[in-house]
Amino acid sequence: MPRNRQVHLDNRPQGEATASNFKLATAETPPLQEGQVLVRHQFLSLDPYMRGRMNDAKSYAAPQPLGQVMQGGTAGEVVESRSPRYQPGDKVVGMGGWQEYSVVNAEQPGALRKVDTMHVPLSHYLGAVGMPGVTAWYGLVKIIEPQAGQTMVVSAASGAVGSAFGALAKARGCRVVGIAGGADKCRYVVDELGFDACIDYKEHKDAASLSKALKEACPAGIDGYFENVGGMVLDAVMMRMNAFGRIALCGMISGYDGQPIPMAYPQLLLTNRLKLQGFIVSEHMEVWPEALKELGALVGSGKLRPRESVAEGLEAAPEAFLGLLKGKNFGKQLVKLT
Amino acid sequence: MPRNRQVHLDNRPQGEATASNFKLATAETPPLQEGQVLVRHQFLSLDPYMRGRMNDAKSYAAPQPLGQVMQGGTAGEVVESRSPRYQPGDKVVGMGGWQEYSVVNAEQPGALRKVDTMHVPLSHYLGAVGMPGVTAWYGLVKIIEPQAGQTMVVSAASGAVGSAFGALAKARGCRVVGIAGGADKCRYVVDELGFDACIDYKEHKDAASLSKALKEACPAGIDGYFENVGGMVLDAVMMRMNAFGRIALCGMISGYDGQPIPMAYPQLLLTNRLKLQGFIVSEHMEVWPEALKELGALVGSGKLRPRESVAEGLEAAPEAFLGLLKGKNFGKQLVKLT
Repeated sequence: MPRNRQVHLDNRPQGEATASNFKLATAETPPLQEGQVLVRHQFLSLDPYMRGRMNDAKSYAAPQPLGQVMQGGTAGEVVESRSPRYQPGDKVVGMGGWQEYSVVNAEQPGALRKVDTMHVPLSHYLGAVGMPGVTAWYGLVKIIEPQAGQTMVVSAASGAVGSAFGALAKARGCRVVGIAGGADKCRYVVDELGFDACIDYKEHKDAASLSKALKEACPAGIDGYFENVGGMVLDAVMMRMNAFGRIALCGMISGYDGQPIPMAYPQLLLTNRLKLQGFIVSEHMEVWPEALKELGALVGSGKLRPRESVAEGLEAAPEAFLGLLKGKNFGKQLVKLT
Repeated sequence: MPRNRQVHLDNRPQGEATASNFKLATAETPPLQEGQVLVRHQFLSLDPYMRGRMNDAKSYAAPQPLGQVMQGGTAGEVVESRSPRYQPGDKVVGMGGWQEYSVVNAEQPGALRKVDTMHVPLSHYLGAVGMPGVTAWYGLVKIIEPQAGQTMVVSAASGAVGSAFGALAKARGCRVVGIAGGADKCRYVVDELGFDACIDYKEHKDAASLSKALKEACPAGIDGYFENVGGMVLDAVMMRMNAFGRIALCGMISGYDGQPIPMAYPQLLLTNRLKLQGFIVSEHMEVWPEALKELGALVGSGKLRPRESVAEGLEAAPEAFLGLLKGKNFGKQLVKLT
């Protein structure tokens, strides 16, 4: 049985999350039962939603338990199998958590997904062709329902969700404007991802200033907005929404440390007859096949070239995760284990 | 030509609206052109949305012009007609404004609606069987989409919209809880309108306290909310919304004087996957026939017994309107002219 290094949640953040909330641990992987497989993780996915689960608060998911392996998406290879559905060498995506190996009940629906690494690199199944990509797809297609010629805006535009959102919206004939932090990210969003414009929110000290920049970048107003951030950015976008605009609310990273992030002008929802809808992509498994098919084709054809920030080694996971929460990553944040 | 007394908007409010924003005036009614009718108003409708239009702000409707008759719904009688579609004596509902007479282009679609006063009193066509009733119907049926057994909450529950909302939701097998200002209104909401419970928001100094009362009145949480008020009441309700709850946003009277009414916890929209949608009923004329049919049947059968506050005489309109904005009315606020 291989020695399995893990990262546990040791204690809950008081305000901002810190490295001391995590603890390295080592366990033996147990012998496989009938129907189980042993997966060796090659990549861990780090995602903003994990910060919310570190709090002991009522939310859509149960909190991350203390003293246990941090939960999260993983991509790796089957190294041992007692399931007829998997062979050693199969590339698989699952929810193995922050550890080097996981034992998976392969018969449980949704526990593991075999992926083709001929046309799409394995790591992308944790990003553009995985949960973040489907998140973008659901928000755009099912909530925003874009029409050709309309203007779409997304925050955290250089990230895994934002970059997929842009490609999906461009494919539907929309004008796409990103919001990101820093000149490098904005350049990438326009030059590499093909957005029509990108605004550096760090250049704006308040919502009024950011809103003015949005007016220039969106001369016909904003019809759809995909929200990953909350707070000042949401306020600024709401000031520029057209009548009957739609806002898909997928993350509010600016409030994850518990600070208040009031919406300044909710009356705009009324005067502009806006729809604002929160969603969690894991509750809409029915769309995954259709979404993954489109996302895989966009990546395979080079229309979506997602960028990755890769930290090396399991012990790097906590710091990489804390950096993600501060926007230090550039594209999808991964941890490479092998 | 009859002498026609009018109320004009003389100047715009600085903060709170006051009687000095209005001015009485007198005009001659012009001779009728072909296709026109002269309507003598029996009732003026006073509605919270008018306050928003007194500001010179971008909104869904153009601002109320200065120096002109205050626009608004009216019910009255045709006294002269040069249209084959109307006869003197016909009871009609239209948008005649705060004046004793109006000249209407009867051929213009939607300008005038002939109503049956055999089964429904004329004044109710400005309330339960008019714009406010259809507003309640649209928010409930098209945005909230209630299911039997779910819990519905409405603010300003004793008003024209709230009372219709309650009857429509009860007819769909829902638990219905109102929020209103004062013990008298709450008693009426439960005893006369048949709500399951009603909470007096004046007994609660903050959202936390109101939210606690909502928890008691809504033991299974809140699935649908119809918002007329905004501010603290919206915050309190959002704390009690169930996953996948729907909020129809129709008014935010607490912000009409220009004071900020931030939404304290927008992250609840995400964690509970809520939908919040603003709407204006006049943009959905296609539902009016179906809605008015149901509302007329509810009033005709006594299942909806709307209450009215009636001010006497045109010159009483400004004060009655200002009282409405402070919640001094009890039920639909009207001005009776004849």
